[in-house]
Amino acid sequence: MLEVWRGGLLECVHQGHAVICDAKGIVAAWGNPEAVIFPRSSAKMIQALPLIETGAADARGLSDRHLALACASHRGARVHVDLAGRWLADLGLAETDLRCGAHEPGDRAERDRLVEAHEKPCQLHNNCSGKHSGFLTVTQHLKAGPEYVEIDHPLQRAIRAATEEVTGETVAGWGVDGCSAPNFAMSVTGLAKAMATYAVAREGRGAREDAMHRLTRAMAAHPHLVAGEGETCTELMRAMGGKVAIKGGAEAVYVGIVPEKGLGIALKVVDGGYRAAEAAIAALLARVGVLDPAHPAAVRRMAGIQRNWRGLETGALRIADGFAA
Amino acid sequence: MLEVWRGGLLECVHQGHAVICDAKGIVAAWGNPEAVIFPRSSAKMIQALPLIETGAADARGLSDRHLALACASHRGARVHVDLAGRWLADLGLAETDLRCGAHEPGDRAERDRLVEAHEKPCQLHNNCSGKHSGFLTVTQHLKAGPEYVEIDHPLQRAIRAATEEVTGETVAGWGVDGCSAPNFAMSVTGLAKAMATYAVAREGRGAREDAMHRLTRAMAAHPHLVAGEGETCTELMRAMGGKVAIKGGAEAVYVGIVPEKGLGIALKVVDGGYRAAEAAIAALLARVGVLDPAHPAAVRRMAGIQRNWRGLETGALRIADGFAA
Repeated sequence: MLEVWRGGLLECVHQGHAVICDAKGIVAAWGNPEAVIFPRSSAKMIQALPLIETGAADARGLSDRHLALACASHRGARVHVDLAGRWLADLGLAETDLRCGAHEPGDRAERDRLVEAHEKPCQLHNNCSGKHSGFLTVTQHLKAGPEYVEIDHPLQRAIRAATEEVTGETVAGWGVDGCSAPNFAMSVTGLAKAMATYAVAREGRGAREDAMHRLTRAMAAHPHLVAGEGETCTELMRAMGGKVAIKGGAEAVYVGIVPEKGLGIALKVVDGGYRAAEAAIAALLARVGVLDPAHPAAVRRMAGIQRNWRGLETGALRIADGFAA
Repeated sequence: MLEVWRGGLLECVHQGHAVICDAKGIVAAWGNPEAVIFPRSSAKMIQALPLIETGAADARGLSDRHLALACASHRGARVHVDLAGRWLADLGLAETDLRCGAHEPGDRAERDRLVEAHEKPCQLHNNCSGKHSGFLTVTQHLKAGPEYVEIDHPLQRAIRAATEEVTGETVAGWGVDGCSAPNFAMSVTGLAKAMATYAVAREGRGAREDAMHRLTRAMAAHPHLVAGEGETCTELMRAMGGKVAIKGGAEAVYVGIVPEKGLGIALKVVDGGYRAAEAAIAALLARVGVLDPAHPAAVRRMAGIQRNWRGLETGALRIADGFAA
């Protein structure tokens, strides 16, 4: 998928699988479209379906901002932490009700604030705190038990069912994600098909399509909530003017929902290298005609000049011949 | 080389090239031993040869601690920053004479100190500041110009010549490294051969062997200066009781010098994934019989149970079948 060049020599290569689907099936594919992968955080819009479909989101009056945060892998900036914190408070819950664990935020300002205040990061800083706030919203609505990340919890059973419905596949297995939630394995094609169902979803055609349409719109409208300043998700969604939703996942997964073309995209870099996943999603979005390949945010990821600590040019990224062609 | 498993499914795979050489040539190889790579920081013991061979190190009374730091990619902890700072002061030079650029240190305590003091990291925090202090020592000794990272500078010409001598290859090209120094390309075999020449070097057999022997001994004796607490170089060298020198490089290169076996090791992970380079060097050191594969520092890298932010087990690393066998 991606080559990394230095001094005129090829220094690194990333390989992967990618699929573009429309509502009928595969439109284009590279690598092995049947490869079974963990979608990781790129499944967050699937994991958020019960939030809307159970009626929990409406019962709690959640806004598109909440829904975007439910689908986010955010940087733990104040905007993310504050929104998740208020959300939990509105539910009458606390940070300690989360089950995602804590890690240092990616956002530099918030990280420095914590260091200066001698504060430890809390679970609200976890990049998945929005998803987990959504999980708690459903859990409360269903009057289910507090251990909402257990595989047999009603919420996770609902997510598993939704996963099988939107991918058209029986779940191939499951693993524990970084945030402790179950993550259901699927083929790259299954994930791309699922994204295509989001892309063609329209309002007023049933609860499932309503939910998909709403989540896609919420993500595309709030790029800074889905990731954060400087992040690929945020920058590329902005570059596409709020009409496309994209989402990355750990170990180099990326998905795209392209409503105007009725297309879903899914890709996985075999080695888990993020730079390749970010380059590949940009290349595929450019290929389907929704991302200007000359946009600085696209160029930086697909063909970025690499510079060192003194700003000297050291090399460049290059999309591998044949990929996204 | 390395597989990453989650929930009983293979999530990621890293491929690479590796060679073990003795003084006569290749003993074992995996992948493509002729692949041309940038050794990056794994070439630091080659880049340090002029420091000793010009007489600069002795003229300045450098200790083994200085030599270990000259071969280091350190974490920018106080011990590293202070040693480099005193070294420059002893030369009558300042941090501003360095040409490595500045970046935030990996060491958490020093990073937090900087944040709390509202100080920016300086060039002494750069993981290559020891190498550059060595470069300045040679430059001063040779009465050469201050721009010591330029490709035609007498120091870089000396490093290029030494590189060709120890690898037995004509340099295949060069690139600008992260620290702005030229980095000379070579085959994985050439790098392993070079490490084998260090492994068999003995004192009293000429300036080259004296220099190689001294650098190897300095690195093996000061694992915490070569990298830092928690780092693979440091932990594995400690696990081997100070008898083996190993060194990583950017984009997932690793080398080993095993004097007691007369062996040199070099490897490159094709995608630049560090976890695979760290696993692979541990596996090869175990294979040649100098690292106990049951040592916790080895297990963690070769077969480590992976845990998430809440400490839950999510999967495990596994050396790929056939590699290092």
